[in-house]
Amino acid sequence: MPIPGPGYAITARVDAPATSTSAGDLTAAVGVVGGVVTAFDVVEAKTDSIVVDISANARNTDHVEEIKDAIDALEGFSVRKISDRTFLLHLGGKIEVRSKVNLRTRDDLSRAYTPGVARVSMAIAENPSDARRLTIKRNTVAVVTDGSAVLGLGNIGAAAAMPVMEGKAALFKQFANVDAWPVCLDTQDTEEIIRTVQILAPGYGGINLEDIAAPRCFEIERRLREMLDIPVFHDDQHGTAVVVLGALRNALRVVGKRFADVKVVVCGVGAAGSAIIRLLGSEETADVLAVDVDGIVHQDRPGMDENLVSIAAQTNKDGKTGSLADALVGADVFVGVSAPNLFGADELATMAERSIVFALANPDPEVDPAVAQQHAAVVATGRSDYPNQINNVLAFPGVFRGLLDAQAHDITDEMMLAASAAIADVVAEPSPSFIVPSVFDTTVAPAVAEALRTAAGKQARKGEVEAG
Amino acid sequence: MPIPGPGYAITARVDAPATSTSAGDLTAAVGVVGGVVTAFDVVEAKTDSIVVDISANARNTDHVEEIKDAIDALEGFSVRKISDRTFLLHLGGKIEVRSKVNLRTRDDLSRAYTPGVARVSMAIAENPSDARRLTIKRNTVAVVTDGSAVLGLGNIGAAAAMPVMEGKAALFKQFANVDAWPVCLDTQDTEEIIRTVQILAPGYGGINLEDIAAPRCFEIERRLREMLDIPVFHDDQHGTAVVVLGALRNALRVVGKRFADVKVVVCGVGAAGSAIIRLLGSEETADVLAVDVDGIVHQDRPGMDENLVSIAAQTNKDGKTGSLADALVGADVFVGVSAPNLFGADELATMAERSIVFALANPDPEVDPAVAQQHAAVVATGRSDYPNQINNVLAFPGVFRGLLDAQAHDITDEMMLAASAAIADVVAEPSPSFIVPSVFDTTVAPAVAEALRTAAGKQARKGEVEAG
Repeated sequence: MPIPGPGYAITARVDAPATSTSAGDLTAAVGVVGGVVTAFDVVEAKTDSIVVDISANARNTDHVEEIKDAIDALEGFSVRKISDRTFLLHLGGKIEVRSKVNLRTRDDLSRAYTPGVARVSMAIAENPSDARRLTIKRNTVAVVTDGSAVLGLGNIGAAAAMPVMEGKAALFKQFANVDAWPVCLDTQDTEEIIRTVQILAPGYGGINLEDIAAPRCFEIERRLREMLDIPVFHDDQHGTAVVVLGALRNALRVVGKRFADVKVVVCGVGAAGSAIIRLLGSEETADVLAVDVDGIVHQDRPGMDENLVSIAAQTNKDGKTGSLADALVGADVFVGVSAPNLFGADELATMAERSIVFALANPDPEVDPAVAQQHAAVVATGRSDYPNQINNVLAFPGVFRGLLDAQAHDITDEMMLAASAAIADVVAEPSPSFIVPSVFDTTVAPAVAEALRTAAGKQARKGEVEAG
Repeated sequence: MPIPGPGYAITARVDAPATSTSAGDLTAAVGVVGGVVTAFDVVEAKTDSIVVDISANARNTDHVEEIKDAIDALEGFSVRKISDRTFLLHLGGKIEVRSKVNLRTRDDLSRAYTPGVARVSMAIAENPSDARRLTIKRNTVAVVTDGSAVLGLGNIGAAAAMPVMEGKAALFKQFANVDAWPVCLDTQDTEEIIRTVQILAPGYGGINLEDIAAPRCFEIERRLREMLDIPVFHDDQHGTAVVVLGALRNALRVVGKRFADVKVVVCGVGAAGSAIIRLLGSEETADVLAVDVDGIVHQDRPGMDENLVSIAAQTNKDGKTGSLADALVGADVFVGVSAPNLFGADELATMAERSIVFALANPDPEVDPAVAQQHAAVVATGRSDYPNQINNVLAFPGVFRGLLDAQAHDITDEMMLAASAAIADVVAEPSPSFIVPSVFDTTVAPAVAEALRTAAGKQARKGEVEAG
């Protein structure tokens, strides 16, 4: 059963009797059916009755009804209406466009718009690289989705994806002062998506691909990286991989092991899994076993698509075959980006000493974290109600801050590893329950941005040398 | 020779002697070469020298050099650097994205982003019309261009069009609190433009087409209107037509004539001219003559494209042929949206008594406004240095404010005429030098929006009756 949380926060306006026990009766009634009361306000008081707003977190829609019924069942109490605080927050959308210039006088207008703006446009026409100096391209990222794999909701389409992309834009601004704009595409055709992003690219300094289904997302990312002169980052792949690698770096410090010595099992070979496997390769991890619904990926497995063939080539040195349980035997690290409840205590017990378990399936992890904690030395999940939450918010704002500042034309694996190291290094003293910083740690994004700028500088110099 | 203006505003930092005549010498030197001094600030004062910032409006780049040389020629004066205030204003772009929600705590994050946002997305997936309630679609307009006809600069492309579209977005916000986003397309293929806008449409409540070359713009607008369920407005056509019709309505009041009695010559049959002709038709204007580089448009003229054929069908009742000069004979109204210096006093003298001349070519009108004022009863231009400036800023912010508020699916000629009447009615007592409100009159946009909402409401009811 889900835990009541702020995602289901409601406020009920209730007519109640004006007695000394009213407040207690009401909060007790909500509590008895499992609601978590978060606020209580008297809105109106008459001689014999009062109107109160009681706010509570519920589990889900049915639970909201249960809470309402529990209040109505009290003698003399009646619910006028229930407001859903999550929906209230989203009314009219979560972002807006603001002007950075004053337009109060004719002179303002002459400079910001016609006729003055003509000179600025001509300067860009004559020297296209001036667009990064004289337009919003300098600080602006497109958050692009086709709505085909939104959160855990699946293929809900462009319009329904908007609230998520707006939220992402709000996070970009809040954590790294990046101007991000939701670009929700009403097509799921690979060629159309690629062409549309190419057509829109002049207005942006970077592209953040988001919630596009695999395997389409791989081709879209690869082709756009080839054709555009701005960085293309697929958050579900690279954002997740950067944070996982950063967390794993600290987890390995905690257990006293090194990438070069550990065997890692990656369960799930979609967007996130594939990118994690590639970065593990860049870190020269001793061995990686990739596992999907058909078991361990190996080069002789029949019927593999392009992505699996590539993964098989990067993993499984010893050509191991079998199930997830087989893969886990002797493994130092499990990284799950797959499905809920795949294994339990028995399989955990077969892992190496001082093992590390990242069970990131949301909302229900691959293995019960409470069980995992009994066997593994370090456990991380994607959830905020356990220690060590692996959250992409730790990566993408700082990554794009750094890319934009460096006016980078591309993002490389080297840059992503630098970002993951920066996230890890924010934690001065890693411990089993503290391998990643809090998502609200305001030092993370600047540290990641700085690492990106440095890595991008190295990249540029390397490129110059190669060109020279 | 152009007049010095704020579009060429510079600030020169100057080392000068610390004498009592320094300030006077400096401003005199700038004035002698024709610079218009707008500000003078002492930045630093030492015993024997001072550093001053002198701001001035220049005519053009060469004139800036002239001013610099004039200062340097003064004994003991030397220019350290010249800043261009127009370029400074555009650094980093003119708009930004702001979050409307707080993201300070885990609860904030749970409501605005995951997991709470999932419910909002599902609500839209189940009921697509909720997008207008729960996303930025409610208040957001795409300012779409292919960069093919930007201001008077011609085909400068997508990147160079950005400063103009950003300026437009800033105006939308300032005048009508509309969130507008620049969508500069790196394609000039009609089919690709149409398809791209269709793919992007879910995120927007309206489309403002801008600076797309004719005749491509006509097909793009027509096809998008057919396929989208949000209003498509081409500012170069409809914005100009709305303001021209509003101004003409007041000009006719001033001269005591009616649409039903006047003969109007429209010179220029591009985007603006074509739309003006259509709205003049909706106003049941007595007769309209369209004129282009080949003279008066008439049904038997050879080699006409689709747009000209349509214009010929709407105009020229008597099948008149000939030149612009022929068309002007006896005309009550001239509306020019074409090219500079096409006629003079001789042709003006042939127009009807109490004629009206709108010479809107920018920056140089079809006829010298000073000459026109000697013959016509009312003269308007597109320039801010003459009375009666016809400026689209009077229309587009209020038009979209009204369309978004009404959740309109389309914009009709009826709605555009309502907007033009609203602009006209803001001027309580029209006079020859006051037929349109100031662009800074803050009552215009609300009045236009109100007219649009009312007209959109009528339209919706009419639609319901027709469907019923």
